[in-house]
Amino acid sequence: MSEKRSVKAALLGLGTVGYGVYKVLRRQSPEMEQKLGTAVELKKILVRNLEKAAKKVEDSSVLTTDWQGILKDPEIEIVIELMGGMEPARTCILEAMKAGKHVVTANKDLLAADGKELMDTADSHHCDFFFEAAVAGGIPIIRPLKQCLAGNYISEVMGIINGTTNFILTKMTREGMEFADALALAQKLGYAEADPTADIEGLDAGRKVAILASIAFHSRVTFDDVYTEGITKISARDICYAKEMGYDIKLLGVARQTDSGIEARVHPMMIESAHPLASVNDSYNAVFVVGDAVGDTMFYGRGAGEMPTASAVVGDVFDIVRNLVHGTCGRIGCTCYRNLPVIAMDETANRYFIRMQVENTCGVLAAVAKVLGDNCVSVAQMIQKNVCGEHAEIVLITDRVKERHFRDSLQTFMEMEVIREISSVIRVQS
Amino acid sequence: MSEKRSVKAALLGLGTVGYGVYKVLRRQSPEMEQKLGTAVELKKILVRNLEKAAKKVEDSSVLTTDWQGILKDPEIEIVIELMGGMEPARTCILEAMKAGKHVVTANKDLLAADGKELMDTADSHHCDFFFEAAVAGGIPIIRPLKQCLAGNYISEVMGIINGTTNFILTKMTREGMEFADALALAQKLGYAEADPTADIEGLDAGRKVAILASIAFHSRVTFDDVYTEGITKISARDICYAKEMGYDIKLLGVARQTDSGIEARVHPMMIESAHPLASVNDSYNAVFVVGDAVGDTMFYGRGAGEMPTASAVVGDVFDIVRNLVHGTCGRIGCTCYRNLPVIAMDETANRYFIRMQVENTCGVLAAVAKVLGDNCVSVAQMIQKNVCGEHAEIVLITDRVKERHFRDSLQTFMEMEVIREISSVIRVQS
Repeated sequence: MSEKRSVKAALLGLGTVGYGVYKVLRRQSPEMEQKLGTAVELKKILVRNLEKAAKKVEDSSVLTTDWQGILKDPEIEIVIELMGGMEPARTCILEAMKAGKHVVTANKDLLAADGKELMDTADSHHCDFFFEAAVAGGIPIIRPLKQCLAGNYISEVMGIINGTTNFILTKMTREGMEFADALALAQKLGYAEADPTADIEGLDAGRKVAILASIAFHSRVTFDDVYTEGITKISARDICYAKEMGYDIKLLGVARQTDSGIEARVHPMMIESAHPLASVNDSYNAVFVVGDAVGDTMFYGRGAGEMPTASAVVGDVFDIVRNLVHGTCGRIGCTCYRNLPVIAMDETANRYFIRMQVENTCGVLAAVAKVLGDNCVSVAQMIQKNVCGEHAEIVLITDRVKERHFRDSLQTFMEMEVIREISSVIRVQS
Repeated sequence: MSEKRSVKAALLGLGTVGYGVYKVLRRQSPEMEQKLGTAVELKKILVRNLEKAAKKVEDSSVLTTDWQGILKDPEIEIVIELMGGMEPARTCILEAMKAGKHVVTANKDLLAADGKELMDTADSHHCDFFFEAAVAGGIPIIRPLKQCLAGNYISEVMGIINGTTNFILTKMTREGMEFADALALAQKLGYAEADPTADIEGLDAGRKVAILASIAFHSRVTFDDVYTEGITKISARDICYAKEMGYDIKLLGVARQTDSGIEARVHPMMIESAHPLASVNDSYNAVFVVGDAVGDTMFYGRGAGEMPTASAVVGDVFDIVRNLVHGTCGRIGCTCYRNLPVIAMDETANRYFIRMQVENTCGVLAAVAKVLGDNCVSVAQMIQKNVCGEHAEIVLITDRVKERHFRDSLQTFMEMEVIREISSVIRVQS
């Protein structure tokens, strides 16, 4: 063990998570030396507005607007990037690594787009590059996948990895709220942003799926490879019917390894109410992992927020500190040693829930069944609802079928006069 | 990175878990070099019966009954102890470490009793000593606690960490079976051993609590410090009343850090049906962890069995291999840098569920309430059940009270003529 009196780190950004990290490091300072063999000191905090930031920290002399000063300070060995977004985060991380500094980030946007360049740069400069906080906030998932479950071939990772949408769906399920009202409530309570697009359209979850898939299957998946579909079309009625049939509706990020390649997608999914993911409610997240040896496992907790996210960031920082103390940095780098194709959504197989409004005439059910049969789609459950005068509602769940064939059926349905509306199409866990 | 063509390991024991490890290592061999930078070879397997073991392995020349041969083989750098029990496991582990070999074990009995000596020996010989499989089988929990959650002060670890008893309680809950019948079924299905004492009396869970508490609170807790109480007295009626009151009954291992010290115990607990642990059923395990930064987290999966346990063992082996490749062994050793007292059960505070059979006469309820009041025990819920002729049943849940005061009340109840029987006493999560 080399002698180290203290390890110095720089924090880039003092927003929600950055301030959380500042607080967690202060709380931990009495025990750091015993825990890690050395203390960790935040020597510099890069901010945009010195005055605003000064109100948050005890000693404002650590604040700076000068990135180059941090970069050129040889004492600073760890850079904690919590600015978010693509630039200047990307440049800062790459420059830090090239200067031999170790990097921790929670930046999923960047990782999901430029993961390969970042990992390669870290590897070639023997830097630690950790990002436990980028997926599912405080929940330990990256390190368990890379280390604890390393003896497994992972076949599936399936997660509730966006707290905002899980809060909305929980409200819709428990209180029968419609989407718009639940979103408004989430915004009022601070769970959803003023522009909620990234959350409700599944983009945020899509970035996390790209990262999870890359690690689980040892093959690079980027955000562009991930199919995303949000929850804006889910109605309280869909949730109610799902419940009747024994399912809950969740926005799931799914990554699967199949014989023909990797599936990576985010969309609403009906999962059996007895599934462990079905009871993950409110803004909680959970990641369900299936391995050939371990079987089913699940990791549950807070997927966002100041302190939970800071917990994951500080866990990474402490791991680097231990590496610095023992001279063991760069121990676990990129693990993408395979090069697997990502399967187009059309080629995946799924079960589907369809809810449609039809004319209440003889032979409609038969006509619907014929279209499905012609496209090799077999029906597992079919219920006729709200038969009332000239109008009826058909709700059905198909067996497993290729998305392409299912879409062909949908296309035909839309051209049929007796079918007035396709109200919902939701994939069903299979 | 030093050049290593292959790392050689020895397996001690080819029982259920040992054979699982043998199989997982074989499955992983095509990708080991890419994953770890080197291959791992099981050079020797120590067995008692060569003939029996020969039927399990492809190449029986790896089998041996000669521990000294393994110990003195300088090529063997990793020893995987899966014999179980105290001796000769203890001696083998200590000798291996003293010979500079790194050790992986799943041996909770040994860790819960002699953890300190094992950790100290590993530290002083710069050996890696990993035991992820000793608690909750395949579920990653030791490494998440030591690394991912290192930035937290952990206040509570609460787990369903015995699959046999969880299976029994699930059967009692779902099918209304009595304990004896559910145990018999568990034995028939191979979930419970012929002598089920260690499981049903909470001893197995108690050992795991000792290990979890030591890691979570950085202070050594041994099995002797852990209060244990099994599930043999739980009846289907208790479970039924618990459900009515909004609770499920689980055998929980609980470790808490309080201002006056550590609480470490195993006993049946009524937990709110909405709590994530309440929906952990069958032989699944889960560990619920509360940290000051991360908040509530839970780790769920298979807590026992050949392949899940092997998954955890191989994860540890791979971590050592990475350390060997990078020359970084001994990076994370014992983290018990505190020395906290363990609180006696009498001094802990709990809520209690009591079910008692009383005479159906005027003033019984008042008499019961008076005894509780005299001992500073306040009542949160009280229900009178099965009032029938001369007999009635009282079911109540107390507020939080010191175990000592509660026991005093119980003592008084037992001396009262109007109280015919104290049928059940179960602690309630608070």
